[in-house]
Amino acid sequence: MTTTPDRATTRTLRIIGIGPGDPRQVTIEAIDAMRGVDTFFVLDKGATKESLVAVREQICDRHLGAGNYRFVEIEDPPRDRNPTDYDAEVRRWHDTRATRIEAALTDELSDDGVGGILVWGDPGLYDSTLRIADAIVDRGRLPLAVEVVAGVTSASALTAAHRILMNRIGEPILITTGRRLGETPSGVDSNQIVMLDADCTFRHTADPGDFIWWGAYLGTPDEILLSGTVGEVGEQIATTRAQARARHGWIMDIYLVRKP
Amino acid sequence: MTTTPDRATTRTLRIIGIGPGDPRQVTIEAIDAMRGVDTFFVLDKGATKESLVAVREQICDRHLGAGNYRFVEIEDPPRDRNPTDYDAEVRRWHDTRATRIEAALTDELSDDGVGGILVWGDPGLYDSTLRIADAIVDRGRLPLAVEVVAGVTSASALTAAHRILMNRIGEPILITTGRRLGETPSGVDSNQIVMLDADCTFRHTADPGDFIWWGAYLGTPDEILLSGTVGEVGEQIATTRAQARARHGWIMDIYLVRKP
Repeated sequence: MTTTPDRATTRTLRIIGIGPGDPRQVTIEAIDAMRGVDTFFVLDKGATKESLVAVREQICDRHLGAGNYRFVEIEDPPRDRNPTDYDAEVRRWHDTRATRIEAALTDELSDDGVGGILVWGDPGLYDSTLRIADAIVDRGRLPLAVEVVAGVTSASALTAAHRILMNRIGEPILITTGRRLGETPSGVDSNQIVMLDADCTFRHTADPGDFIWWGAYLGTPDEILLSGTVGEVGEQIATTRAQARARHGWIMDIYLVRKP
Repeated sequence: MTTTPDRATTRTLRIIGIGPGDPRQVTIEAIDAMRGVDTFFVLDKGATKESLVAVREQICDRHLGAGNYRFVEIEDPPRDRNPTDYDAEVRRWHDTRATRIEAALTDELSDDGVGGILVWGDPGLYDSTLRIADAIVDRGRLPLAVEVVAGVTSASALTAAHRILMNRIGEPILITTGRRLGETPSGVDSNQIVMLDADCTFRHTADPGDFIWWGAYLGTPDEILLSGTVGEVGEQIATTRAQARARHGWIMDIYLVRKP
């Protein structure tokens, strides 16, 4: 036994941000990283998986060439979406995911093989893949080198699509979730970028005169953009979101809400 | 006179995010947008300009081919860095810049020509180019179509380089400036990403046990990364920053500071 990393027995996991959905929003760095991957691991499930795998395959076909890559799907463990202890349930779910991914990295890669996981947007922003990789490294059972490639965030795609800035001059920007939106203290509520909000929580937290820029399926042919004051377009966003989610079976959306 | 936009007499300005500095962190979408540009306008000045123009030329050489592009420099108006009224001074400075850029777009492009401005990181995050373009459109003297291409932010590059997430599970993220850092209310100070902080303000606002991940010249051969608790590495960051700035004549840096 030795504690020195041995390249010949160390697998590599590349966590690669591929932007919010448009294959053209992938960076050259991400494409280079993808070219060195032996096997891509896919973690999604259900209707989301169908759509997202299709987009990933489109990206790989375009940049790696059709047939020049290998995907292995790792079934996602079930998750309680309304747990009593939210953080504990997320941790339990991540732990189960880590076990499954560790097994797949062991079984599907050679001893010095390179695995890849393609992450929507940027791996640093509201994504659990890096947390899972760190958990596998911390367990210490599988020698694993982790690499991270930054991607364009859905926040940048949203503001570019609406041709707006995230901030007014010198103002801070809060990135938060629907779950936490109601807890934002005044002073930092001027520019809020909200992700993971299935309930359109802004309808309960924002004033009717606040301005909102909303986007769904950003960078894809299904992209929807709506903007206006919350009083004018708030309900329209909620209705549009519900209809689009029913039609596609899944939705990824984000919005910026701004105080006048 | 007509109010209908006429393509034959409408110039286009493409504001293109090119990521924080590594030519490989440019997206395919940005490269495609750059390929259709007749003239690139450059707004930097002094030592920053020397270094940044070099990086931009490297990006253009690599993706457009040497000699296949044209740069026009627009001299940046002088700016009071310590004004009594900060917002008013920034607005005055933007207005002067807008006048100079409007003149350059008029003089250097054909009536239906395409101009480009390459922006570090993402045009939506603490960058004034889009604000200036909107000001030119609002004046109504020059028919102008504005396009925005999202880029990888320095925040994403920072967290990818350190292989960390911006947030812990479910937590909000505040993006702010050195100037505003002292005003952050508790409750949203768990994860703060700080830009434009020449004074290393975290030394006065953070606790010694807070963790900091700092990066400068991200994605370039001069990249510097430091991390640890503020108590351990705070002064080292300030010293390193001052020395690097003196050596290069300019610096672009960013950090994430996190409560334990």
